Amino acid sequence: MAKSSKLNFSGLRAIYFNGTLTKSPEPSHTDLLINLSKSIMDKHGVNTEVIRTIDHDIATGVYPDMREHGAKTDEWPKIYKRVEQANILVICGPIWLGDNSSMTKKIIERLYACSGLLNKNGQYAYYGKVGGSLITGNEDGVKHCTMNTLYSLQHLGCVIPPQADAGWIGEVGPGASYGDILEDGSREGFDNDFTNRNTTFMTWNLMHLAKMLKANDGIPAQGNQRSKWDAGERFDFENPEYR
Amino acid sequence: MAKSSKLNFSGLRAIYFNGTLTKSPEPSHTDLLINLSKSIMDKHGVNTEVIRTIDHDIATGVYPDMREHGAKTDEWPKIYKRVEQANILVICGPIWLGDNSSMTKKIIERLYACSGLLNKNGQYAYYGKVGGSLITGNEDGVKHCTMNTLYSLQHLGCVIPPQADAGWIGEVGPGASYGDILEDGSREGFDNDFTNRNTTFMTWNLMHLAKMLKANDGIPAQGNQRSKWDAGERFDFENPEYR
Amino acid sequence: MAKSSKLNFSGLRAIYFNGTLTKSPEPSHTDLLINLSKSIMDKHGVNTEVIRTIDHDIATGVYPDMREHGAKTDEWPKIYKRVEQANILVICGPIWLGDNSSMTKKIIERLYACSGLLNKNGQYAYYGKVGGSLITGNEDGVKHCTMNTLYSLQHLGCVIPPQADAGWIGEVGPGASYGDILEDGSREGFDNDFTNRNTTFMTWNLMHLAKMLKANDGIPAQGNQRSKWDAGERFDFENPEYR
Amino acid sequence: MAKSSKLNFSGLRAIYFNGTLTKSPEPSHTDLLINLSKSIMDKHGVNTEVIRTIDHDIATGVYPDMREHGAKTDEWPKIYKRVEQANILVICGPIWLGDNSSMTKKIIERLYACSGLLNKNGQYAYYGKVGGSLITGNEDGVKHCTMNTLYSLQHLGCVIPPQADAGWIGEVGPGASYGDILEDGSREGFDNDFTNRNTTFMTWNLMHLAKMLKANDGIPAQGNQRSKWDAGERFDFENPEYR
Repeated sequence: MAKSSKLNFSGLRAIYFNGTLTKSPEPSHTDLLINLSKSIMDKHGVNTEVIRTIDHDIATGVYPDMREHGAKTDEWPKIYKRVEQANILVICGPIWLGDNSSMTKKIIERLYACSGLLNKNGQYAYYGKVGGSLITGNEDGVKHCTMNTLYSLQHLGCVIPPQADAGWIGEVGPGASYGDILEDGSREGFDNDFTNRNTTFMTWNLMHLAKMLKANDGIPAQGNQRSKWDAGERFDFENPEYR
Repeated sequence: MAKSSKLNFSGLRAIYFNGTLTKSPEPSHTDLLINLSKSIMDKHGVNTEVIRTIDHDIATGVYPDMREHGAKTDEWPKIYKRVEQANILVICGPIWLGDNSSMTKKIIERLYACSGLLNKNGQYAYYGKVGGSLITGNEDGVKHCTMNTLYSLQHLGCVIPPQADAGWIGEVGPGASYGDILEDGSREGFDNDFTNRNTTFMTWNLMHLAKMLKANDGIPAQGNQRSKWDAGERFDFENPEYR
Repeated sequence: MAKSSKLNFSGLRAIYFNGTLTKSPEPSHTDLLINLSKSIMDKHGVNTEVIRTIDHDIATGVYPDMREHGAKTDEWPKIYKRVEQANILVICGPIWLGDNSSMTKKIIERLYACSGLLNKNGQYAYYGKVGGSLITGNEDGVKHCTMNTLYSLQHLGCVIPPQADAGWIGEVGPGASYGDILEDGSREGFDNDFTNRNTTFMTWNLMHLAKMLKANDGIPAQGNQRSKWDAGERFDFENPEYR
Repeated sequence: MAKSSKLNFSGLRAIYFNGTLTKSPEPSHTDLLINLSKSIMDKHGVNTEVIRTIDHDIATGVYPDMREHGAKTDEWPKIYKRVEQANILVICGPIWLGDNSSMTKKIIERLYACSGLLNKNGQYAYYGKVGGSLITGNEDGVKHCTMNTLYSLQHLGCVIPPQADAGWIGEVGPGASYGDILEDGSREGFDNDFTNRNTTFMTWNLMHLAKMLKANDGIPAQGNQRSKWDAGERFDFENPEYR
């Protein structure tokens, strides 16, 4: 299939974190949805990577390198190097009891652990990146989970493009999960127009905004530099008590 | 005080919705925080407006004009005309029992009621706008509330800039609210560096992204047009079942 | 059909608040689910009542009687009299953008407005009541909504029985709502075993706990009386600083 | 100090799960708050235990014993034996980015993993237990976190007593954490009346309800037995389609 657009997104990098509780090589339902998004990006020259958190020896904690805080091993510092180079971060995962998994929370904790780092402009290190989220479950909670993942990403400094959440859940109650093979040979959720459309729109909007920010060299450095604020600059903010 | 920047934001429009449960002319704590953000925008030529929801005869419901669905009166269609022209939407309000107020939810419902409308490119009508959130309470819940307001705005089609949430709460438990005059004559929360910094950064980031989107004529129309999707275009999305 | 149990629940009172955004006499999807629960209670002699919030002239605000705070009218004080007599409160409603409706939030605000009232033992007025929640939507968010409604009820002083949340949503994306008549003449969601089972279990557990609390004359008055705490009693709590 | 009450709670067992991200022997702020509650229970003969999740080799996953699903080791089955004997479960932990920690989520996942187990009456195994929650952070989110922990516990089958959430947070923004020693030698949060009162009331209400349920031999087995529902019993539920 030919690319649908002359737009050029090469040079962009994207990381999808998959917070499934299932280790490789067991299949992950969330992976199937990630692949839909990833394959659009791949087609347009974006350098993409999927990191299944549970497969990696990532320490639990809130410091950039937990080896400096008692952990024997910690793969996070190596992974964070790739985060630094990424333009697009997509936090993905399953729903358990209506909420994000412990593996999804671990990644958010470690991203947050690095949120004190600043870029060359004195802005938080995540400025200039964009964030999205993909969630699968078999019954309920895509919006609850993405409220949290997208909130976390923007709070860290990412831009959230329009409609940056997508996912699949079935009718309430237990049942087939995303991609499970049904009796008629079809696969659960694959023909859900809402999931397909939202995943497509999210993917394109992530690419559009990442490209726009790259072209602008990130977020303009005015009014948002932590280093300058700490040095006393107030960027036209006036404390009402002293007006 | 002179403007701190040569950046020019004139031509932008911003609306702050205040979801306080208190009618004018009674003061609103949230208004005090809104003013900090608004005054930065004003200084830079942004056309700003604060709409205190409870002061307006906005009908409850999920249609663009509730007068067509039994309501005798409905100010929303008139307000929505201003929403259409706005580049920046900031949903603000108080916290009650750890959650957004009924007035904040009413505005989100009415914004959502108009989410089926498309722009000239076939994108959702909110594409090209940016969104933020300001919350005040006296004890707990800024993040919970803004998870929901920012989620809603991005789901509707707004871009969420970096760190687009700010707010103030005091130590857990009842106590003075934002801006209350304390025994020593100072005003609660006004010297909170975290609140002031986040409010400032949010304000600038809203202006930066709004300007960037305006300069780009919104979000590039590729991969995200509802009208084309409905007409069968799939933008390089491939249903895995048929690959 | 004969009653399935010799258990006697007569003398109990239950109120279901329906937070639909649709006024009577238009039908409410949530009402259909409420009726399943209500009809079990009715069969066992519980005095039940459904209050569709939007049909009532309930003022917005956080005081027990908003007429004392500028509202011309306010039906809440009259409704609260019935709340006082109820043993069971069930907060019900629809999902909009993944969250509770403005009408559901309004009821929570008004219940909260009365949370300073104490019973004859000096406990909060809601002590001795039990709470549950029923939610319908067409795509996502039962758990998110009931996290909030059940949280609110327990924070006010209600007991939450086991599995006190139930609801129905369909597969993600737009589609038929609960009880909508489908092409084959059946009604959406009515055969969902999960919804039916959870609604049944919730209903019985509400009755069991309400009866148990009534038999115990509420929650034992020891360690939980606001009036005594305010008078200096500490109920074996020891401030660690002074140990 | 003499016990304040003649009430006898001996024979009850309570487990507090602490989801801190800090391994022993490093101190945990949440532990300080747990101790306030625990010492009231201890004084009344409740058998109490604190389990700091991160100190234990608990596998990640959603099965009762992950050793049957590829994990080399898994302490959970041994811990679950103690959960089975407990009358009171209190999920405690810190707040990170406004949400529960990955360690708190891991415990909820493993409790959920055992939710298919039934007691001798055919009810879910958690029936007859009561649940509460204690959260500490330095800025925001006690209510958001406990909405989730208490929701999870009731969904699993626990009763939630009145006001079963307590916690401490300081004014918004970074700052001292609970129990940190301040310049004047006092300890942050220890004199917060709201935290102390809510912790006390929660503790007593957990004991009262646990005792009441024990005296009633759990939740009456009528209308809530999964085994009977699966065998076709409907407990007066009537499918509206067939009425």
